[in-house]
Amino acid sequence: MSELRKDLISGRWVIIATERSKRPDDFRPHGAVAPAPEAAGFCPFCEGNEGKTPPEVFALRAAGTAPDSPGWTVRVVPNKFPALNPGPPPPRATRGVFQSMEGRGIHEVVIENPDHAFELADLPVTHVRDVLGVFQKRILAIERDFHYQYVQVFKNKGKEAGASLSHPHSQIVATPIIPKRVKEEMYGADRLFRTFKECAFCRILREEEAAGSRLIARNAQFTAFAPYASRFPFEMTIYPKRHSAFFTEVREDELLTLAEILKHVLTRLKETVGDPPFNLVLHQAPNPSSSLKKWPDIELRSHWHLEIIPILTKVAGFEWGTGFYINPVPPETGAQFLRQS
Amino acid sequence: MSELRKDLISGRWVIIATERSKRPDDFRPHGAVAPAPEAAGFCPFCEGNEGKTPPEVFALRAAGTAPDSPGWTVRVVPNKFPALNPGPPPPRATRGVFQSMEGRGIHEVVIENPDHAFELADLPVTHVRDVLGVFQKRILAIERDFHYQYVQVFKNKGKEAGASLSHPHSQIVATPIIPKRVKEEMYGADRLFRTFKECAFCRILREEEAAGSRLIARNAQFTAFAPYASRFPFEMTIYPKRHSAFFTEVREDELLTLAEILKHVLTRLKETVGDPPFNLVLHQAPNPSSSLKKWPDIELRSHWHLEIIPILTKVAGFEWGTGFYINPVPPETGAQFLRQS
Repeated sequence: MSELRKDLISGRWVIIATERSKRPDDFRPHGAVAPAPEAAGFCPFCEGNEGKTPPEVFALRAAGTAPDSPGWTVRVVPNKFPALNPGPPPPRATRGVFQSMEGRGIHEVVIENPDHAFELADLPVTHVRDVLGVFQKRILAIERDFHYQYVQVFKNKGKEAGASLSHPHSQIVATPIIPKRVKEEMYGADRLFRTFKECAFCRILREEEAAGSRLIARNAQFTAFAPYASRFPFEMTIYPKRHSAFFTEVREDELLTLAEILKHVLTRLKETVGDPPFNLVLHQAPNPSSSLKKWPDIELRSHWHLEIIPILTKVAGFEWGTGFYINPVPPETGAQFLRQS
Repeated sequence: MSELRKDLISGRWVIIATERSKRPDDFRPHGAVAPAPEAAGFCPFCEGNEGKTPPEVFALRAAGTAPDSPGWTVRVVPNKFPALNPGPPPPRATRGVFQSMEGRGIHEVVIENPDHAFELADLPVTHVRDVLGVFQKRILAIERDFHYQYVQVFKNKGKEAGASLSHPHSQIVATPIIPKRVKEEMYGADRLFRTFKECAFCRILREEEAAGSRLIARNAQFTAFAPYASRFPFEMTIYPKRHSAFFTEVREDELLTLAEILKHVLTRLKETVGDPPFNLVLHQAPNPSSSLKKWPDIELRSHWHLEIIPILTKVAGFEWGTGFYINPVPPETGAQFLRQS
């Protein structure tokens, strides 16, 4: 059973996931390591290998095909090595000054397509839309349980970005507390709302559109740009023009234009910088079934968005100590390269 | 000229370092890359190559030897590609909602010893003490200018930990603002001081000593342990038993026992997990010449310490989105392995 633990000083929570526990030898670079399934040419996420994953919790599949059999286009399964396990809401435990709770939550894998070789950027726009639609469906299903206070959707592409399997997939983790980073964003947006008398994200978007120098791509409903204070080279964000706190509120027609701009910027990243590892991170307001009671204004002040972090630099001692990042590529330069086609 | 920029939402500052600016091709994994000096067998930090670094700002060297010539044991030079440049305190500039200031600061390299092959763990304890003493001397010299509000000392060992040269070295960066992470730690410690009526770090240390399960090493003046809420496998921290906010207050005799315990835990890390990349990070209170006026109690509430982060896992989408970390090795397990000899 994994455990959530709170760092006393920073207030940061971490998951101590004993089910993922490894021995020191597992980290030895030259130690004897069992060949990964991939190395042996086997992939549990490929079509035909459905029996090698936990039973699917959802799939878009051809009519008449059975669960956990071929015939799907997007498939969702529980993570075989979950960081958190489902269950009733855990009480907090204390030992002296140390606080903990059991690691309750959800950890799912969204297999984006049956073919090992096709990344998001390679798929038809309608397929990318379907993947985004599956994110929505799973978020809605998970948020029915109000104990899961935050649902984090993310994608790690490439080993350097934390992916342990190369078959294109995303992940969904639901946590029993609102994470620090999410709170920081909420509190920051709240403070700024009082200053600006409007959503801070809407304000930023307007100023980015006016400035122009960090814009990467636009369509009728979305704008992709390099954040003003980008931490990483070629960092990108995609904002919806229509103010909305929750990703689940994206309409069907918007999902298609979101898929368009997402596929476009991922393709541009590939063309511009090679095919770098990256993290794709969804930011949104916490589970509305609990957060709206606590913060009725959250719908006005939060604004969902996507963040794309190419892994081209290392987080090092300076970053750990200060929370500063050293970014060797100005976002304006990055955006210029990403804009040109 | 690099720029500091503040992220509007999180309040996070970043350095946009145009002098480190790269073109997209520089990141192409398969692009044409000029061979690094190392690859050619040349190292600017090795004895005899003093002319290949900027002129030294400090060195421990044999009597009668000239600056920037052989004969030194520890040598400090300005970083050839600094993230920040010295200069008068920069005013903040605003463009719409975006705030910036010029990237003023200090960025130095501490070459820990003349021999390329000797890491901290391989050096005699007295030499490690000398390196720590040089950190103190440089911090004191830099803090004379009260505009440098925080001095960050850190070490990146290994490429994966962010080191661009393999010759053993540490770095010192002084920033014109107090970094977010440092403020978080100060504010957290302040809040807890009011609850505990004592320094939170002293309290944690007492509870760690009582619990015992996360202890790694101890001597009369220092304790090394795995933090209760470790973010990373085999993460370690070293606390001084004597309460002190500033690293510069460590006494000569304490420097030696600190060197002892540091060498010991780095050796244990090597023996336990192989020779992993790691970051070594000093945490301390901001420059006393400005912070003591603002927060007279800072001496009571801050408590300097060292943090050692082995790079064995990747920071991925989940971490970026939530600020949570997934640590596959419980600190008690890590500490047990690190304790055994």
